[in-house]
Amino acid sequence: MSTLGKGICIITGASKGFGRALAHEVSPLLEPGSVLLLVARSGALLQELKEELHSFTDKQQLAVHCVAVDLATRTGVNETVRIVRQEAENKIDHVLLINNAGSLGDISEFRSFTDIETVNSYLSFNVSSALALTAGVLQVFPCRVGLRWSVVNVSSILALNALPSWVLYCTAKAARHAVFSVLAKEEPNVKVLSYSPGPMDTAMQVDILRLTGIRHCLYPCQESAAKLIKLLLDNDFTSGKHLDFFDV
Amino acid sequence: MSTLGKGICIITGASKGFGRALAHEVSPLLEPGSVLLLVARSGALLQELKEELHSFTDKQQLAVHCVAVDLATRTGVNETVRIVRQEAENKIDHVLLINNAGSLGDISEFRSFTDIETVNSYLSFNVSSALALTAGVLQVFPCRVGLRWSVVNVSSILALNALPSWVLYCTAKAARHAVFSVLAKEEPNVKVLSYSPGPMDTAMQVDILRLTGIRHCLYPCQESAAKLIKLLLDNDFTSGKHLDFFDV
Repeated sequence: MSTLGKGICIITGASKGFGRALAHEVSPLLEPGSVLLLVARSGALLQELKEELHSFTDKQQLAVHCVAVDLATRTGVNETVRIVRQEAENKIDHVLLINNAGSLGDISEFRSFTDIETVNSYLSFNVSSALALTAGVLQVFPCRVGLRWSVVNVSSILALNALPSWVLYCTAKAARHAVFSVLAKEEPNVKVLSYSPGPMDTAMQVDILRLTGIRHCLYPCQESAAKLIKLLLDNDFTSGKHLDFFDV
Repeated sequence: MSTLGKGICIITGASKGFGRALAHEVSPLLEPGSVLLLVARSGALLQELKEELHSFTDKQQLAVHCVAVDLATRTGVNETVRIVRQEAENKIDHVLLINNAGSLGDISEFRSFTDIETVNSYLSFNVSSALALTAGVLQVFPCRVGLRWSVVNVSSILALNALPSWVLYCTAKAARHAVFSVLAKEEPNVKVLSYSPGPMDTAMQVDILRLTGIRHCLYPCQESAAKLIKLLLDNDFTSGKHLDFFDV
Protein backbone atom coordinates (compact mmCIF):
# COMPACT_ATOMS: atom_id res chain seq x y z
CA MET A 1 0.00 0.00 0.00
CA SER A 2 1.50 3.34 -0.99
CA THR A 3 -0.99 5.74 0.61
CA LEU A 4 -3.20 5.84 3.67
CA GLY A 5 -6.23 6.45 1.44
CA LYS A 6 -8.73 9.25 1.53
CA GLY A 7 -8.90 9.51 5.22
CA ILE A 8 -9.66 11.40 8.33
CA CYS A 9 -6.59 11.30 10.54
CA ILE A 10 -6.77 12.48 14.14
CA ILE A 11 -3.50 12.96 16.02
CA THR A 12 -3.60 13.85 19.71
CA GLY A 13 -0.65 15.56 21.34
CA ALA A 14 0.16 16.88 17.87
CA SER A 15 1.72 20.20 18.88
CA LYS A 16 5.22 18.89 19.49
CA GLY A 17 7.56 15.92 19.66
CA PHE A 18 6.34 12.60 18.31
CA GLY A 19 2.83 13.84 17.48
CA ARG A 20 4.22 16.67 15.41
CA ALA A 21 6.57 14.28 13.58
CA LEU A 22 3.62 11.99 12.88
CA ALA A 23 1.67 14.87 11.34
CA HIS A 24 4.59 15.49 8.97
CA GLU A 25 4.82 11.81 8.03
CA VAL A 26 1.09 11.31 7.55
CA SER A 27 0.28 14.43 5.50
CA PRO A 28 1.89 13.43 2.19
CA LEU A 29 0.38 9.95 2.44
CA LEU A 30 -3.25 11.06 2.64
CA GLU A 31 -5.11 11.20 -0.67
CA PRO A 32 -6.85 14.38 -1.93
CA GLY A 33 -9.97 15.24 0.02
CA SER A 34 -8.53 13.97 3.30
CA VAL A 35 -8.78 15.71 6.65
CA LEU A 36 -6.12 15.97 9.33
CA LEU A 37 -7.16 16.92 12.87
CA LEU A 38 -4.36 18.17 15.08
CA VAL A 39 -5.32 18.01 18.76
CA ALA A 40 -3.37 19.54 21.65
CA ARG A 41 -3.69 22.22 24.31
CA SER A 42 -1.61 24.86 22.57
CA GLY A 43 -3.53 26.49 19.74
CA ALA A 44 -0.49 28.57 18.81
CA LEU A 45 1.77 25.56 18.33
CA LEU A 46 -0.93 23.74 16.35
CA GLN A 47 -1.38 26.77 14.07
CA GLU A 48 2.37 26.88 13.49
CA LEU A 49 2.35 23.19 12.58
CA LYS A 50 -0.62 23.68 10.28
CA GLU A 51 1.28 26.35 8.38
CA GLU A 52 4.35 24.14 8.16
CA LEU A 53 2.25 21.33 6.74
CA HIS A 54 0.55 23.59 4.21
CA SER A 55 3.93 24.81 2.99
CA PHE A 56 4.51 21.24 1.78
CA THR A 57 0.97 20.19 0.91
CA ASP A 58 -1.70 21.87 -1.23
CA LYS A 59 -4.58 23.21 0.91
CA GLN A 60 -7.05 21.85 -1.65
CA GLN A 61 -5.58 18.40 -1.18
CA LEU A 62 -5.60 18.23 2.60
CA ALA A 63 -7.78 20.12 5.08
CA VAL A 64 -5.93 20.62 8.34
CA HIS A 65 -7.89 21.55 11.46
CA CYS A 66 -6.42 22.66 14.76
CA VAL A 67 -8.33 21.52 17.84
CA ALA A 68 -6.95 23.35 20.86
CA VAL A 69 -8.44 21.50 23.83
CA ASP A 70 -7.42 19.83 27.05
CA LEU A 71 -8.09 16.11 26.62
CA ALA A 72 -7.99 15.58 30.38
CA THR A 73 -11.46 17.12 30.51
CA ARG A 74 -14.91 16.08 29.36
CA THR A 75 -15.17 19.34 27.39
CA GLY A 76 -11.90 18.64 25.59
CA VAL A 77 -12.87 15.12 24.52
CA ASN A 78 -16.42 16.12 23.55
CA GLU A 79 -15.24 19.13 21.55
CA THR A 80 -12.80 16.93 19.62
CA VAL A 81 -15.55 14.42 18.83
CA ARG A 82 -17.85 17.27 17.77
CA ILE A 83 -15.29 18.48 15.23
CA VAL A 84 -14.75 14.93 13.98
CA ARG A 85 -18.55 14.71 13.52
CA GLN A 86 -18.52 17.82 11.33
CA GLU A 87 -16.24 15.94 8.95
CA ALA A 88 -18.41 12.84 8.84
CA GLU A 89 -20.30 14.19 5.83
CA ASN A 90 -17.26 13.75 3.61
CA LYS A 91 -16.87 10.44 1.90
CA ILE A 92 -13.73 8.84 3.26
CA ASP A 93 -12.32 5.36 3.19
CA HIS A 94 -9.99 5.39 6.21
CA VAL A 95 -10.38 6.55 9.79
CA LEU A 96 -6.97 6.78 11.43
CA LEU A 97 -6.92 7.78 15.09
CA ILE A 98 -3.50 8.17 16.71
CA ASN A 99 -3.80 8.39 20.49
CA ASN A 100 -0.45 9.99 21.15
CA ALA A 101 -1.21 12.55 23.88
CA GLY A 102 0.36 11.64 27.18
CA SER A 103 2.42 13.05 29.99
CA LEU A 104 5.38 11.89 32.02
CA GLY A 105 3.80 12.59 35.38
CA ASP A 106 5.49 12.72 38.73
CA ILE A 107 8.49 10.38 38.99
CA SER A 108 8.52 9.96 42.74
CA GLU A 109 8.62 7.14 45.21
CA PHE A 110 5.53 4.97 45.37
CA ARG A 111 4.79 6.01 48.94
CA SER A 112 4.45 9.66 47.94
CA PHE A 113 1.23 9.03 45.99
CA THR A 114 -1.14 9.34 48.93
CA ASP A 115 -3.46 11.79 47.18
CA ILE A 116 -6.08 9.97 45.16
CA GLU A 117 -6.90 13.15 43.20
CA THR A 118 -3.33 13.46 41.89
CA VAL A 119 -3.57 9.92 40.58
CA ASN A 120 -7.06 10.51 39.16
CA SER A 121 -5.98 13.59 37.30
CA TYR A 122 -3.06 11.72 35.73
CA LEU A 123 -5.24 8.78 34.71
CA SER A 124 -7.88 11.09 33.29
CA PHE A 125 -5.47 12.58 30.77
CA ASN A 126 -3.42 9.47 30.12
CA VAL A 127 -6.06 6.72 30.11
CA SER A 128 -9.68 7.84 30.21
CA SER A 129 -9.29 10.44 27.46
CA ALA A 130 -7.89 7.90 25.00
CA LEU A 131 -10.77 5.53 25.74
CA ALA A 132 -13.48 8.19 25.60
CA LEU A 133 -12.11 9.79 22.44
CA THR A 134 -11.76 6.47 20.64
CA ALA A 135 -15.30 5.50 21.67
CA GLY A 136 -16.62 8.86 20.47
CA VAL A 137 -14.92 8.57 17.07
CA LEU A 138 -16.21 5.00 16.74
CA GLN A 139 -19.73 6.33 17.24
CA VAL A 140 -19.22 8.97 14.56
CA PHE A 141 -17.80 6.45 12.10
CA PRO A 142 -19.40 3.06 12.71
CA CYS A 143 -17.60 0.16 11.05
CA ARG A 144 -18.96 -0.51 7.56
CA VAL A 145 -17.85 -2.37 4.47
CA GLY A 146 -15.29 -0.31 2.57
CA LEU A 147 -14.21 1.74 5.56
CA ARG A 148 -10.77 1.03 6.88
CA TRP A 149 -10.45 1.76 10.60
CA SER A 150 -7.07 2.05 12.34
CA VAL A 151 -6.28 3.06 15.90
CA VAL A 152 -2.81 3.61 17.23
CA ASN A 153 -2.07 3.66 20.93
CA VAL A 154 1.26 5.35 21.49
CA SER A 155 2.63 3.11 24.20
CA SER A 156 5.93 2.44 25.92
CA ILE A 157 8.02 -0.53 26.97
CA LEU A 158 6.90 0.50 30.45
CA ALA A 159 3.40 -0.73 29.58
CA LEU A 160 4.95 -4.19 29.91
CA ASN A 161 7.77 -3.64 32.40
CA ALA A 162 7.64 -2.15 35.87
CA LEU A 163 10.25 0.47 36.71
CA PRO A 164 10.87 1.80 40.24
CA SER A 165 9.56 5.35 40.79
CA TRP A 166 7.54 5.25 37.58
CA VAL A 167 4.29 4.07 39.12
CA LEU A 168 2.06 6.66 37.41
CA TYR A 169 3.61 6.20 33.98
CA CYS A 170 3.76 2.39 34.11
CA THR A 171 0.20 2.19 35.41
CA ALA A 172 -1.23 4.46 32.74
CA LYS A 173 0.65 2.79 29.90
CA ALA A 174 -0.39 -0.69 31.11
CA ALA A 175 -3.98 0.53 31.42
CA ARG A 176 -3.95 2.00 27.91
CA HIS A 177 -2.56 -1.22 26.48
CA ALA A 178 -5.45 -3.04 28.15
CA VAL A 179 -7.97 -0.53 26.75
CA PHE A 180 -6.78 -1.16 23.21
CA SER A 181 -6.37 -4.91 23.68
CA VAL A 182 -10.06 -5.06 24.56
CA LEU A 183 -10.92 -2.95 21.52
CA ALA A 184 -8.95 -5.31 19.26
CA LYS A 185 -10.81 -8.33 20.67
CA GLU A 186 -14.18 -6.61 20.51
CA GLU A 187 -14.08 -4.95 17.09
CA PRO A 188 -12.57 -7.25 14.47
CA ASN A 189 -13.03 -4.53 11.85
CA VAL A 190 -10.89 -2.05 13.73
CA LYS A 191 -7.16 -2.54 13.33
CA VAL A 192 -5.46 -1.73 16.62
CA LEU A 193 -1.76 -1.15 17.19
CA SER A 194 0.04 -0.34 20.42
CA TYR A 195 3.35 1.14 19.35
CA SER A 196 6.23 1.86 21.69
CA PRO A 197 8.16 4.62 19.91
CA GLY A 198 11.49 4.15 21.69
CA PRO A 199 13.62 6.89 23.26
CA MET A 200 13.21 10.05 21.20
CA ASP A 201 14.58 13.59 21.21
CA THR A 202 11.49 15.08 22.86
CA ALA A 203 10.82 17.53 25.68
CA MET A 204 9.81 14.51 27.81
CA GLN A 205 13.33 13.13 27.54
CA VAL A 206 14.73 16.49 28.65
CA ASP A 207 12.52 16.18 31.75
CA ILE A 208 13.60 12.58 32.32
CA LEU A 209 17.27 13.58 32.18
CA ARG A 210 16.66 16.47 34.58
CA LEU A 211 14.61 14.39 37.03
CA THR A 212 16.47 11.09 36.98
CA GLY A 213 19.89 11.94 35.60
CA ILE A 214 19.40 9.08 33.15
CA ARG A 215 20.60 9.92 29.66
CA HIS A 216 19.24 7.68 26.93
CA CYS A 217 20.60 7.31 23.46
CA LEU A 218 17.85 9.25 21.67
CA TYR A 219 16.51 8.81 18.17
CA PRO A 220 14.91 11.56 16.08
CA CYS A 221 11.11 11.62 16.38
CA GLN A 222 10.96 11.50 12.61
CA GLU A 223 12.72 8.13 12.51
CA SER A 224 10.26 6.53 14.94
CA ALA A 225 7.29 8.22 13.26
CA ALA A 226 8.41 6.84 9.90
CA LYS A 227 8.57 3.31 11.34
CA LEU A 228 5.05 3.62 12.72
CA ILE A 229 3.67 4.96 9.45
CA LYS A 230 5.37 2.14 7.55
CA LEU A 231 3.60 -0.34 9.84
CA LEU A 232 0.29 1.32 8.95
CA LEU A 233 1.08 1.34 5.23
CA ASP A 234 2.13 -2.32 5.24
CA ASN A 235 -0.86 -3.09 7.48
CA ASP A 236 0.18 -6.67 8.11
CA PHE A 237 0.46 -6.57 11.91
CA THR A 238 -1.98 -8.51 14.06
CA SER A 239 -4.63 -6.28 15.57
CA GLY A 240 -4.01 -5.64 19.26
CA LYS A 241 -0.28 -6.26 18.98
CA HIS A 242 2.27 -4.31 21.06
CA LEU A 243 5.21 -3.46 18.80
CA ASP A 244 8.42 -1.72 19.75
CA PHE A 245 10.56 0.70 17.74
CA PHE A 246 13.55 -1.62 18.17
CA ASP A 247 11.68 -4.67 16.92
CA VAL A 248 10.22 -3.34 13.70
CA MET B 1 4.88 -20.32 59.41
CA SER B 2 1.76 -21.05 61.42
CA THR B 3 0.55 -17.52 62.17
CA LEU B 4 0.58 -14.13 60.46
CA GLY B 5 2.30 -12.65 63.51
CA LYS B 6 1.24 -9.77 65.69
CA GLY B 7 -0.07 -7.66 62.90
CA ILE B 8 -2.21 -4.92 61.62
CA CYS B 9 -4.33 -6.29 58.84
CA ILE B 10 -6.35 -3.97 56.61
CA ILE B 11 -8.95 -5.49 54.31
CA THR B 12 -10.80 -3.27 51.85
CA GLY B 13 -14.15 -4.33 50.48
CA ALA B 14 -14.52 -6.36 53.67
CA SER B 15 -18.28 -6.13 54.06
CA LYS B 16 -19.16 -9.03 51.78
CA GLY B 17 -17.97 -11.70 49.40
CA PHE B 18 -14.27 -12.38 49.17
CA GLY B 19 -13.26 -9.60 51.58
CA ARG B 20 -15.57 -10.96 54.26
CA ALA B 21 -14.24 -14.48 53.74
CA LEU B 22 -10.69 -13.14 54.07
CA ALA B 23 -11.57 -11.50 57.39
CA HIS B 24 -12.76 -14.88 58.66
CA GLU B 25 -9.61 -16.63 57.47
CA VAL B 26 -7.19 -14.01 58.78
CA SER B 27 -8.67 -13.48 62.27
CA PRO B 28 -7.61 -16.77 63.89
CA LEU B 29 -4.12 -16.44 62.41
CA LEU B 30 -3.28 -13.09 63.97
CA GLU B 31 -1.43 -13.22 67.27
CA PRO B 32 -2.73 -11.53 70.45
CA GLY B 33 -2.49 -7.75 70.31
CA SER B 34 -3.24 -7.62 66.60
CA VAL B 35 -5.58 -5.22 64.89
CA LEU B 36 -7.96 -5.91 62.04
CA LEU B 37 -9.34 -3.00 60.02
CA LEU B 38 -12.43 -3.75 58.00
CA VAL B 39 -13.00 -1.15 55.29
CA ALA B 40 -16.13 -0.79 53.13
CA ARG B 41 -18.97 1.60 52.47
CA SER B 42 -21.59 -0.18 54.55
CA GLY B 43 -21.06 0.41 58.25
CA ALA B 44 -23.96 -1.91 59.09
CA LEU B 45 -22.49 -4.88 57.22
CA LEU B 46 -19.05 -4.25 58.74
CA GLN B 47 -20.55 -4.15 62.24
CA GLU B 48 -22.31 -7.44 61.56
CA LEU B 49 -19.02 -8.97 60.41
CA LYS B 50 -17.21 -7.60 63.45
CA GLU B 51 -19.72 -9.32 65.74
CA GLU B 52 -19.39 -12.56 63.80
CA LEU B 53 -15.61 -12.42 64.16
CA HIS B 54 -15.81 -11.68 67.89
CA SER B 55 -18.08 -14.65 68.39
CA PHE B 56 -15.10 -16.80 67.35
CA THR B 57 -12.20 -14.70 68.66
CA ASP B 58 -11.55 -13.15 72.04
CA LYS B 59 -11.89 -9.33 71.95
CA GLN B 60 -8.74 -9.04 74.08
CA GLN B 61 -6.84 -10.99 71.48
CA LEU B 62 -7.90 -9.10 68.40
CA ALA B 63 -9.13 -5.51 68.07
CA VAL B 64 -11.50 -5.20 65.14
CA HIS B 65 -12.26 -1.75 63.74
CA CYS B 66 -14.94 -0.93 61.20
CA VAL B 67 -14.05 1.84 58.77
CA ALA B 68 -17.18 2.82 56.84
CA VAL B 69 -15.88 4.98 54.01
CA ASP B 70 -16.07 5.30 50.25
CA LEU B 71 -12.60 4.53 48.92
CA ALA B 72 -13.43 6.22 45.62
CA THR B 73 -12.98 9.54 47.40
CA ARG B 74 -10.05 11.43 48.90
CA THR B 75 -11.93 11.59 52.20
CA GLY B 76 -12.42 7.82 52.23
CA VAL B 77 -8.76 7.04 51.61
CA ASN B 78 -7.49 9.70 54.02
CA GLU B 79 -9.87 8.61 56.79
CA THR B 80 -8.69 5.01 56.43
CA VAL B 81 -5.05 6.08 56.65
CA ARG B 82 -5.90 8.25 59.69
CA ILE B 83 -7.33 5.24 61.52
CA VAL B 84 -4.32 3.13 60.53
CA ARG B 85 -2.11 5.88 62.00
CA GLN B 86 -3.95 5.67 65.32
CA GLU B 87 -2.81 2.06 65.56
CA ALA B 88 0.80 2.83 64.74
CA GLU B 89 1.61 3.21 68.43
CA ASN B 90 1.16 -0.50 69.01
CA LYS B 91 4.19 -2.66 68.56
CA ILE B 92 3.51 -4.95 65.68
CA ASP B 93 5.64 -7.16 63.49
CA HIS B 94 3.51 -7.51 60.37
CA VAL B 95 1.61 -5.02 58.21
CA LEU B 96 -0.79 -6.88 55.94
CA LEU B 97 -2.78 -4.76 53.51
CA ILE B 98 -5.30 -6.56 51.33
CA ASN B 99 -6.54 -4.33 48.51
CA ASN B 100 -9.70 -6.23 47.74
CA ALA B 101 -12.26 -3.47 47.10
CA GLY B 102 -13.36 -3.33 43.50
CA SER B 103 -16.40 -3.13 41.33
CA LEU B 104 -17.59 -4.84 38.17
CA GLY B 105 -18.45 -1.65 36.33
CA ASP B 106 -20.45 -1.26 33.19
CA ILE B 107 -20.13 -4.25 30.83
CA SER B 108 -21.00 -2.48 27.61
CA GLU B 109 -19.55 -2.14 24.17
CA PHE B 110 -16.30 -0.21 23.92
CA ARG B 111 -17.92 2.52 21.85
CA SER B 112 -20.39 3.37 24.60
CA PHE B 113 -17.65 4.80 26.86
CA THR B 114 -17.67 8.30 25.43
CA ASP B 115 -17.94 9.99 28.81
CA ILE B 116 -14.52 10.55 30.33
CA GLU B 117 -16.05 11.15 33.77
CA THR B 118 -17.66 7.70 33.85
CA VAL B 119 -14.26 6.17 33.16
CA ASN B 120 -12.56 8.44 35.70
CA SER B 121 -14.99 7.54 38.42
CA TYR B 122 -14.44 3.82 37.78
CA LEU B 123 -10.66 4.19 37.80
CA SER B 124 -10.77 6.29 40.96
CA PHE B 125 -12.36 3.49 42.96
CA ASN B 126 -10.64 0.58 41.25
CA VAL B 127 -7.11 1.89 40.69
CA SER B 128 -6.25 5.21 42.34
CA SER B 129 -7.69 4.27 45.73
CA ALA B 130 -5.54 1.12 45.95
CA LEU B 131 -2.43 3.12 45.07
CA ALA B 132 -3.20 6.04 47.41
CA LEU B 133 -4.17 3.79 50.31
CA THR B 134 -1.08 1.60 49.95
CA ALA B 135 1.13 4.70 49.75
CA GLY B 136 -0.55 6.14 52.84
CA VAL B 137 -0.09 2.96 54.87
CA LEU B 138 3.56 2.77 53.72
CA GLN B 139 4.08 6.27 55.13
CA VAL B 140 2.53 5.27 58.45
CA PHE B 141 4.64 2.12 58.68
CA PRO B 142 7.99 2.73 56.98
CA CYS B 143 9.97 -0.43 56.25
CA ARG B 144 12.29 -1.32 59.11
CA VAL B 145 14.21 -4.33 60.28
CA GLY B 146 11.89 -6.75 62.05
CA LEU B 147 8.73 -5.50 60.36
CA ARG B 148 7.18 -7.82 57.83
CA TRP B 149 5.27 -5.95 55.14
CA SER B 150 2.81 -7.72 52.83
CA VAL B 151 0.46 -6.24 50.25
CA VAL B 152 -2.14 -8.21 48.35
CA ASN B 153 -3.71 -6.90 45.18
CA VAL B 154 -6.91 -8.81 44.54
CA SER B 155 -6.65 -9.19 40.81
CA SER B 156 -8.29 -11.18 38.04
CA ILE B 157 -7.26 -13.22 35.03
CA LEU B 158 -8.64 -10.23 33.12
CA ALA B 159 -5.64 -8.22 34.30
CA LEU B 160 -3.71 -10.32 31.79
CA ASN B 161 -6.35 -11.16 29.18
CA ALA B 162 -8.59 -8.84 27.21
CA LEU B 163 -12.28 -9.75 27.05
CA PRO B 164 -14.75 -8.06 24.70
CA SER B 165 -17.16 -5.68 26.49
CA TRP B 166 -15.07 -5.71 29.63
CA VAL B 167 -12.98 -2.66 28.86
CA LEU B 168 -13.42 -0.96 32.24
CA TYR B 169 -12.75 -4.10 34.26
CA CYS B 170 -9.77 -5.28 32.16
CA THR B 171 -8.25 -1.79 32.15
CA ALA B 172 -8.54 -1.33 35.89
CA LYS B 173 -7.20 -4.79 36.71
CA ALA B 174 -4.27 -4.36 34.31
CA ALA B 175 -3.58 -0.94 35.82
CA ARG B 176 -3.66 -2.32 39.36
CA HIS B 177 -1.30 -5.13 38.44
CA ALA B 178 1.09 -2.48 37.08
CA VAL B 179 0.75 -0.42 40.28
CA PHE B 180 1.79 -3.37 42.41
CA SER B 181 4.47 -4.56 39.98
CA VAL B 182 6.15 -1.19 40.39
CA LEU B 183 5.83 -1.41 44.17
CA ALA B 184 7.48 -4.85 44.14
CA LYS B 185 10.39 -3.54 42.07
CA GLU B 186 10.73 -0.39 44.14
CA GLU B 187 10.43 -1.71 47.68
CA PRO B 188 12.38 -4.95 48.13
CA ASN B 189 11.22 -5.10 51.75
CA VAL B 190 7.56 -5.14 50.83
CA LYS B 191 6.24 -8.51 49.73
CA VAL B 192 3.69 -7.96 46.98
CA LEU B 193 1.21 -10.48 45.63
CA SER B 194 -1.37 -10.05 42.89
CA TYR B 195 -3.88 -12.83 43.45
CA SER B 196 -6.62 -13.75 41.02
CA PRO B 197 -9.23 -15.40 43.25
CA GLY B 198 -11.08 -17.30 40.52
CA PRO B 199 -14.84 -17.43 39.99
CA MET B 200 -16.54 -17.22 43.40
CA ASP B 201 -20.07 -17.27 44.74
CA THR B 202 -20.27 -13.50 45.17
CA ALA B 203 -22.81 -10.79 44.38
CA MET B 204 -20.56 -9.78 41.46
CA GLN B 205 -21.10 -13.19 39.86
CA VAL B 206 -24.86 -12.74 40.24
CA ASP B 207 -24.50 -9.48 38.31
CA ILE B 208 -22.31 -11.12 35.67
CA LEU B 209 -24.89 -13.85 35.14
CA ARG B 210 -27.69 -11.29 34.86
CA LEU B 211 -25.78 -9.00 32.49
CA THR B 212 -23.99 -11.49 30.27
CA GLY B 213 -25.95 -14.71 30.72
CA ILE B 214 -22.63 -16.42 31.37
CA ARG B 215 -22.81 -18.91 34.21
CA HIS B 216 -19.45 -19.85 35.68
CA CYS B 217 -18.72 -22.84 37.83
CA LEU B 218 -18.36 -20.96 41.11
CA TYR B 219 -16.22 -21.79 44.11
CA PRO B 220 -16.98 -20.77 47.70
CA CYS B 221 -15.23 -17.52 48.68
CA GLN B 222 -13.87 -19.35 51.70
CA GLU B 223 -11.98 -21.81 49.49
CA SER B 224 -10.24 -19.07 47.52
CA ALA B 225 -9.60 -17.03 50.66
CA ALA B 226 -7.98 -20.05 52.29
CA LYS B 227 -5.66 -20.48 49.29
CA LEU B 228 -4.60 -16.85 49.47
CA ILE B 229 -3.96 -17.01 53.20
CA LYS B 230 -1.92 -20.19 52.74
CA LEU B 231 0.24 -18.32 50.21
CA LEU B 232 0.81 -15.61 52.83
CA LEU B 233 1.59 -18.13 55.55
CA ASP B 234 4.03 -20.07 53.35
CA ASN B 235 5.43 -16.74 52.11
CA ASP B 236 7.60 -18.31 49.45
CA PHE B 237 6.17 -16.58 46.38
CA THR B 238 8.26 -14.08 44.44
CA SER B 239 7.29 -10.50 45.21
CA GLY B 240 5.29 -8.94 42.39
CA LYS B 241 4.02 -12.28 41.12
CA HIS B 242 0.53 -12.70 39.65
CA LEU B 243 -0.90 -15.97 40.95
CA ASP B 244 -4.19 -17.56 40.05
CA PHE B 245 -6.57 -19.59 42.21
CA PHE B 246 -6.32 -22.47 39.72
CA ASP B 247 -2.54 -22.52 39.75
CA VAL B 248 -1.86 -22.57 43.49
